[in-house]
This record gives sequence, structure tokens and C-alpha cells, in this order.
Amino acid sequence: MVAVICFTSDFGTSDGWVGVCHAVIHQACPTARVVDLSHHVPPYDLRRGAAVAAAGAWQLPEALHLVVVDPGVGGMRRDLIIETGRGTRLVGPDNGILVPATWRLGGIRRAYAIDPQRVGPGTALATFHARDVLAPAVALLACDVQSSAIAKEIDVASLASAPFPAGRREDGVVHAEVIDADRYGSLRIAADSELLSSAQLDSGVLEVVAGHTRIAAPFATTFSDVAEGEPVALIDSSGWLTIAVRLGSAAERYGVEPGTMVRVQQAPSPV
Amino acid sequence: MVAVICFTSDFGTSDGWVGVCHAVIHQACPTARVVDLSHHVPPYDLRRGAAVAAAGAWQLPEALHLVVVDPGVGGMRRDLIIETGRGTRLVGPDNGILVPATWRLGGIRRAYAIDPQRVGPGTALATFHARDVLAPAVALLACDVQSSAIAKEIDVASLASAPFPAGRREDGVVHAEVIDADRYGSLRIAADSELLSSAQLDSGVLEVVAGHTRIAAPFATTFSDVAEGEPVALIDSSGWLTIAVRLGSAAERYGVEPGTMVRVQQAPSPV
Amino acid sequence: MVAVICFTSDFGTSDGWVGVCHAVIHQACPTARVVDLSHHVPPYDLRRGAAVAAAGAWQLPEALHLVVVDPGVGGMRRDLIIETGRGTRLVGPDNGILVPATWRLGGIRRAYAIDPQRVGPGTALATFHARDVLAPAVALLACDVQSSAIAKEIDVASLASAPFPAGRREDGVVHAEVIDADRYGSLRIAADSELLSSAQLDSGVLEVVAGHTRIAAPFATTFSDVAEGEPVALIDSSGWLTIAVRLGSAAERYGVEPGTMVRVQQAPSPV
Repeated sequence: MVAVICFTSDFGTSDGWVGVCHAVIHQACPTARVVDLSHHVPPYDLRRGAAVAAAGAWQLPEALHLVVVDPGVGGMRRDLIIETGRGTRLVGPDNGILVPATWRLGGIRRAYAIDPQRVGPGTALATFHARDVLAPAVALLACDVQSSAIAKEIDVASLASAPFPAGRREDGVVHAEVIDADRYGSLRIAADSELLSSAQLDSGVLEVVAGHTRIAAPFATTFSDVAEGEPVALIDSSGWLTIAVRLGSAAERYGVEPGTMVRVQQAPSPV
Repeated sequence: MVAVICFTSDFGTSDGWVGVCHAVIHQACPTARVVDLSHHVPPYDLRRGAAVAAAGAWQLPEALHLVVVDPGVGGMRRDLIIETGRGTRLVGPDNGILVPATWRLGGIRRAYAIDPQRVGPGTALATFHARDVLAPAVALLACDVQSSAIAKEIDVASLASAPFPAGRREDGVVHAEVIDADRYGSLRIAADSELLSSAQLDSGVLEVVAGHTRIAAPFATTFSDVAEGEPVALIDSSGWLTIAVRLGSAAERYGVEPGTMVRVQQAPSPV
Repeated sequence: MVAVICFTSDFGTSDGWVGVCHAVIHQACPTARVVDLSHHVPPYDLRRGAAVAAAGAWQLPEALHLVVVDPGVGGMRRDLIIETGRGTRLVGPDNGILVPATWRLGGIRRAYAIDPQRVGPGTALATFHARDVLAPAVALLACDVQSSAIAKEIDVASLASAPFPAGRREDGVVHAEVIDADRYGSLRIAADSELLSSAQLDSGVLEVVAGHTRIAAPFATTFSDVAEGEPVALIDSSGWLTIAVRLGSAAERYGVEPGTMVRVQQAPSPV
């Protein structure tokens, strides 16, 4: 199968950084295909970067994933390759951004610190490890170089932690963070279908409680399962719980922002 | 010739949907090239999606065209392959978005409803037919699978109608809709050069009447045929009548918005 | 090595022009890879277009560079191929936009005016030379066609001049223009490391004087060499002097805009 590299960053597309990384990959591994998941992660926003990358890895576990939101570039933080329990490989800085993608892919099996000397000819520019370390490394992996040939295995316990917590269950309630509001205003919550099932929250009408805001939404399979303007809860392509308003914006309607902790529970029965 | 797939959607580029569709296509047909026409069609905006796709099909009739603006995803609407009289193939939902592209390519010769079971291994996710039905289908076409192998022919008369009317002539006047304002503020009108010629509106000074607004512009071949700040009428790369202001914005100057019906006629001679 | 074409324009990504050019290149030279540096150059902004292109050429001198910001399209201006002293080839209109990229690549060795008849089958559309002349030309170069086969050599002295001046030294002071503010708010100044070294401005604390604004910033190697919120001067991946604020925006903090001429000198020692 053709090697696909999914690329997520906060580089934007107004400057040339994304294209330069593409060029580096094409030159180092001409058979690989690079696809852009998003480069519009707001500058330094680890939460959103991790959310986009994790949604991509969930859908494309056989691809390689290059994820660069890197406020500490050039400092002491390491450049990582992470291999998940299911074999997916993720490349990015050691600042937690790769971690949420591993939760639904068998956790972290092995972690490596990339040796810049083994992936490129010269000294890495301190402001652009993406070009000089991370992109060359993911290109080599795409061309069948082993992680151990370009990186040193490190203790998984030493890794920086995720920018948001994994959702957790407490009796019939799930506690989880809102991690993203997408283009259509749908709210994505760090609770996957397994977690919702275990709490019996994968049917009926859910109630999402965010501070004083209470959203009651039927658990369904697609937006058009409800009438225009009505809220709906579903597991979308990200693999995470999503609260949407049909042909509207849940983010605007409810004023809930990424970073908010919510409770998800069965809505009380009408009396 | 290398198979090129033109991809238009309202997905934006902040979320990973576009990249995921690219990856699906690369995996299903590694020899195809995917090019992005636009993913910044405003959410659910069928008019603009159809306008961008039609401009692309006009310029690249030998390419395949994947067009996804799909407010009804997961509901009852069908996933289509349309073949035009000139052999261009278009893939997208049955909501009218593919239709304007066929007007200048020989009309609709055949239409097919894609069978999701024949394009992918699993059940299509109800919120993301682009990934599970439409992208796999266009990839198979790019790799020389016949439409009839993955889709069932359906009655052309049963298709949803276009989001805007084709321009029409009434004596020396053309009635047509403004369908797009581009990045430079140029207004695109659903009247092609054949229609304008037939009404003898391909020379002299045209008058475009939109409500109380009257725009008089010489019919020319390029923007620099007029002085800076002056309006000009021409057929641009979309193949449609375009009203531009040299080094300015016609949309701002005249306050005309997509969706407006206009009359195009010869400007009255100065007395 | 695989031929890489770097593409910079002011086309935006809401209309289909970029994708159409990609398709034209894929069809004319299927082995080439096209990477997008930026298409979000503001309409007609030659300065920014030249800055993005020059940063790309500096980093990828072995690639081909297609640069299209072209307010005079269809008029009398020529379509160029420029070859630099170091062998990099640049393709774009004769309006100065290609020139800054040559300054750090050995200057202009040869310049050619492309003959539209030799790169495409039909007549070039007067509004879209990028599709009909420039993209086909760069694709042919990528597939090993010689410049002289598709273009006529012209006098280098006849070329339009650059949209901003090269930085210059006067004793220990460098005079240069601010040419770009990037996504993170970092200011890029048209002074390269060679120029700064020659003026002994590659260490210590620099002072950048823009009108009444004075920015004192230590010359360092990466953003995290200073504390959060502090300014820093460095040579970033563009190869040009960059004034950044760690985890902040220099452009906002100092209110300095592209187009401003600045003086760069050693900061006065504290008494």
C-alpha cells in the first residue's frame, strides 16, 4: 500500500512552511503521499492540534502522522516518534500533542527521541525542526527505515502529558472536555463510543451539562435524524461524541467553548 | 494521461476532512492525482459549490470532478455519478450541485446512484459519505472501473434540480443570475459566451441591470484593457460573463451579491 | 531527484485557480510534484509575493519556483523564466516579483521571455496566463525541456525592478525594508546573515529603529532563547533577519508594518 503521511500543524498557509515540509518529504521519499489534515490550528494551540491529529489517526491508523504545534522549538524538548499498540506511528514534538491520538489506538507501545544527525545532512535550524528533523524523519519512516535506525528508545513515562484529559466514567455519568468546535459549529467532546457504551449513553436522549448550560439532544446517527435547528448527539468521523445543531451551529447556540469540562448523562425523563 | 480528480467542498481546511478524503483516494487509486479547487465554499452553499465546480469542469473536462456540499448527508438523498454528453464524469450528492457543470459539457447523458456496498468494505458512516462513498467511488473511476460496476443507472428526470437557473435570452437581453464574487471582487454571471453571442452581447458596451443598479462596462478580453478603477465585462476562465473593476472590486463598488438576477443588454448609445 | 515545483500566488483558495494550475502541471509533467508555498498573498501585493517566493527559493534552491502575482495579466508585460547564478529557475511575470529571490542565489544569470505558442496548444486566455503560459512552462522545465526551447533570451537589464530594495550597509548600520509579518506576528526584514555579519550585527543586542519606534532585541538562535513576552532577533528559515516576541506578536506589539524602512544597529550599551 502507498505510504500516506498526514500532516497537521499551526503553520497556517500564508507563509511557506507547509510547502517547504512537503518538498523535503518528496525529496527524501518520493513514493510517499502527503495529505494535509489542517494547518489552521491557532498558533500554539496544543488542544486543537491534538484533537485534529487524533481524529485523523482514528480514521487512518495505517498512515503516518506528522503533528507540529511547537512553541518550544529549538529548546530542550525532544522530537519524538511514538508507536501505538496497534502499530500507528506518530511524529512530533514532546509536548503532549501526540498523546490523545494513542488513546484509541492501543496506547503507547514505544517512544523514541529522534537523533537529528541521523535524519539530515546538516545542523537543524533551531526555529524549524519541522523542516530539518520531523519531516525528514517521517519521510524516512515512509520509505521503510526503522524507528530504531534514526531515534533512540526512551522511557514512555518520561513523555509530556496530553493537553486534555481522556474522558472518564463515574457511574452513569461521563466527564470529558470539549476539545474542538468544527467549521459547522459542532462541538466535539473527548468521549469515544466505547466509553459512552460502558455508561449506557449511546441511546435515548443525552444531557450535556456545561456550567449552567444544559443541552438535551437525542443520540442519533446523522444530522438529518432531527429537524432543522434541533440539537443532535452522535459519534462523528472523529470517533468522538459530537453535539451538533442541524443546519445550525451548536457552538454559537450554546456558547460552549473548547476547554470546557462537561458532564454527559441521560436526560431526566419528562414527567 | 494521468487521471486527475478535482475536489470541491464546503469542508474548510481547519478540520481534517479534506485530507482524509485525499488519503482514501490515494489508497484506493495510487496513480490518481487529486487537486483541490476549493474547500472554502460557505457551509451548505449549493450555489457557490456548483459555481466553483462548473468553472473547474469547464476548464478540465477530461478530469473527474468530486463535489461535496451535502446538508442532507446520511439522509435519503442519493450519491451520484453523472456522465455528461462530452464524457466528463462528476461525483457528488443528488442535491443539484452537479447540474450546472453539465450545461456546457453536452448536458447529462447518464446518471447513476452509487451502491455504497460496492465501493467500500464496511458500512458508510452516516455523517461522512464523502469519505466512505463519494471519494472511494471517484477513486475507482480514476482507476478505470466502470460506473455501471459500482452504481445503478437511474432516470435523469429524477435528479434534483440546479441551485440556480441557466441564463436565458429574450430578444437582445440575457437574464441570468449572479452566481459568484471571486477573491478580487469580480462578479460572475451564469451566461456563457455562446449565449452572449446569440444575443449579440459580445462586443460594444454592455449594461448589467441589477434592481436599481446599472453597470455599464465595455466587453473586452482582459482587465488591463480598461484604466485603473474602470469596470470591464469579459469571459474569464470560468467561461462565464464576469464584471470586474481593474485593480478594484466590482462586488464592493456595486453592492451586487450572488443570488441576484440581472439583465444584460447593450448600453444605450450616448446622445 | 524528483522535480519539485513551488507555487506562490495571490489566487487565494476560495476559487479554483490554484487547483486548475496543479491539474495543468500534472497533465504536462506527471512526474513533477507541486507544493504550495502560499496562495494567500493579498491581491496584487508584489512585496509579499516576492518575500514568500524568496524565502522558498532560499530554502529549496534545487526546486523550480512558480510565482504569480500579476495585476497586468494579459497586457504587455512578459512571462519570464529567470535562471540564477546558482542554477535555480524561477517562472513568473515580468513585474519584479522574481527578483528578490535571485539576490541570495547568485543574482540573475539569464532571463527569458516565454513564447506562449511553444508551451501550449491554443491561444492563451488573456485573464489567466498562469494556466495557459506559466504553469505549462514550469511543467516543461520540470520534465527536462530547456528554457531556450520555449523562451527567447532577453536582456537582464530590461527586467522590471524588485518591489523592495535589497538591504544595504552604511558603516555599522544596516538599512532595510520590513517585507513581511508572518502568522506569529514576527517581522521579517530584507537583511540576510551575510549583510548582518559584514556590519557586525550578528551578536549582542540589536536595535531596530522604525520612525519613533526602537526595538532592542538580543541576537539569538531561537525563540525560546528569551523569556515569554520578550523580543528576540534571529535569522529564521527565510534566511532573513526576523524580529519576534516569544509566544507573542512583534507586529502587534510594535505596530510596524511591511513597507517600513528600518535601521538596524547595535543597541547603545547601558550606562
